[in-house]
Amino acid sequence: MAQESAQAQLVLKLGYRGGAFSGFAEQEGCRTVAGELRQALQTVLHREVELTCAGRTDAGVHAVAQYVSVPVWGDELELSGRRLMASLTALVPDDMSVRAIMRASANFSARFDAESRSYRYRISCGRPRPMLLYGHTWWLRPAPDLDVDAMSRAAAHLVGEHDFTSFCKVSSARMLLEDGRSLSRCLQEVRVSRVEELGEPVVAIDVTGNAFLHNMVRIITGTLVEVGRGQRQPEWVAEVLAACDRTAAGQTAPPEGLTFVHVAYPTGLLTPWA
Amino acid sequence: MAQESAQAQLVLKLGYRGGAFSGFAEQEGCRTVAGELRQALQTVLHREVELTCAGRTDAGVHAVAQYVSVPVWGDELELSGRRLMASLTALVPDDMSVRAIMRASANFSARFDAESRSYRYRISCGRPRPMLLYGHTWWLRPAPDLDVDAMSRAAAHLVGEHDFTSFCKVSSARMLLEDGRSLSRCLQEVRVSRVEELGEPVVAIDVTGNAFLHNMVRIITGTLVEVGRGQRQPEWVAEVLAACDRTAAGQTAPPEGLTFVHVAYPTGLLTPWA
Repeated sequence: MAQESAQAQLVLKLGYRGGAFSGFAEQEGCRTVAGELRQALQTVLHREVELTCAGRTDAGVHAVAQYVSVPVWGDELELSGRRLMASLTALVPDDMSVRAIMRASANFSARFDAESRSYRYRISCGRPRPMLLYGHTWWLRPAPDLDVDAMSRAAAHLVGEHDFTSFCKVSSARMLLEDGRSLSRCLQEVRVSRVEELGEPVVAIDVTGNAFLHNMVRIITGTLVEVGRGQRQPEWVAEVLAACDRTAAGQTAPPEGLTFVHVAYPTGLLTPWA
Repeated sequence: MAQESAQAQLVLKLGYRGGAFSGFAEQEGCRTVAGELRQALQTVLHREVELTCAGRTDAGVHAVAQYVSVPVWGDELELSGRRLMASLTALVPDDMSVRAIMRASANFSARFDAESRSYRYRISCGRPRPMLLYGHTWWLRPAPDLDVDAMSRAAAHLVGEHDFTSFCKVSSARMLLEDGRSLSRCLQEVRVSRVEELGEPVVAIDVTGNAFLHNMVRIITGTLVEVGRGQRQPEWVAEVLAACDRTAAGQTAPPEGLTFVHVAYPTGLLTPWA
């Protein structure tokens, strides 16, 4: 049965620890989040399924609130949410977590209906190795501590609508350009702050935007870190943005520090799957 | 050279993820925190060392602030703190973290000078599997949510000085009794609260006391959970305490939810190792 016959969308809120996945998107011969989830859903629904996600995450990137929509029909509409949750939780591996099961109308898309996406990038500064956060944070050393005020001033340049070519993986930018698609994105927030999580100090970079280019948050992080280390002035970030050239920006920060934390959908589109 | 000739104590603040350790204390043929740390220290100091810790943690229990003291002498007093930190960080395994290196007088003991110890026990309620906290929290399911108010009222009965025999591992209690030692301990705080950590909801039990019996926080947790589930009234905890009988209390909660988070020492005893 084809997707056109969908009568509703089953929407999953999904968490995962990214370390042992080759990213979200399915790839032949690799362990991926989509691959594991699709297998679990196919076991429950006894058929092939198609997944649409709010945002593809790279290999090693974590999520606490990825959203995935799956067209459903017929008897599937009558499935018990409680049993679906129990079955999917039992079927997905230990490093994945189905957080909530929701229902949306047939024309809903986890990707196209998302109004904004939010990510948190965690950095642990200093000589001590991270403890409970190990694997969920970028251990930056040897570390003169980061200048969070300077990073915040630098981050302010990124807020608003800009061409983010400088903050996009080169091969991805080339493909988008070839397809005649825009590299403009709108960031609502880029906040740099010191927080304590699980008993250890962390520099957190919280980024919210309408959509993101490939590696965008990780390149933003690598760029802000150069400012935080005093190697660059905050105003340099405006030059990086204006250059529209990946080589103008800082390094791509490693994936383990990045977590996909929130997706905003218009109120009322999603209702709990009873 | 014997400990008596110590001229100072080298004091380490230590973190570890407990999952792959058979606890803190050394045991023949097992991977332990003390074993790994002693090996690293011996490599740095080129001699045998003796460790004293603030509190032995069980297999699977985590720490963000364990303290360990090591008697040192002679040239060792001149070692650079910066180089000690770099060497120890390189030598200990990935699931351990040397957080800080301090100096104390020769008669200091990480165990006997501790004024109080604090632990956090984390519980994740509900059908979804924990995400980033997986392995650092007790996944309690199937879960009617816990009644945190009832747990708080129950916890209030435990504060103060009491005979905690009901909350001590039976074999340990027997040994203490045989040695004519007290099973009385004084708790300054037992706080139950809902918190959000790494983007997921957690019920946290924060316990501070002068000292702890074997399995004490885990049995307190198992007992409070019975109240939180509505299987017992809060006042029942006073009866459990009065019974001085391990079988009166709840189950021993699993180790992975427990983290050793703080030790208080008298002001001025510890100074940074320059």
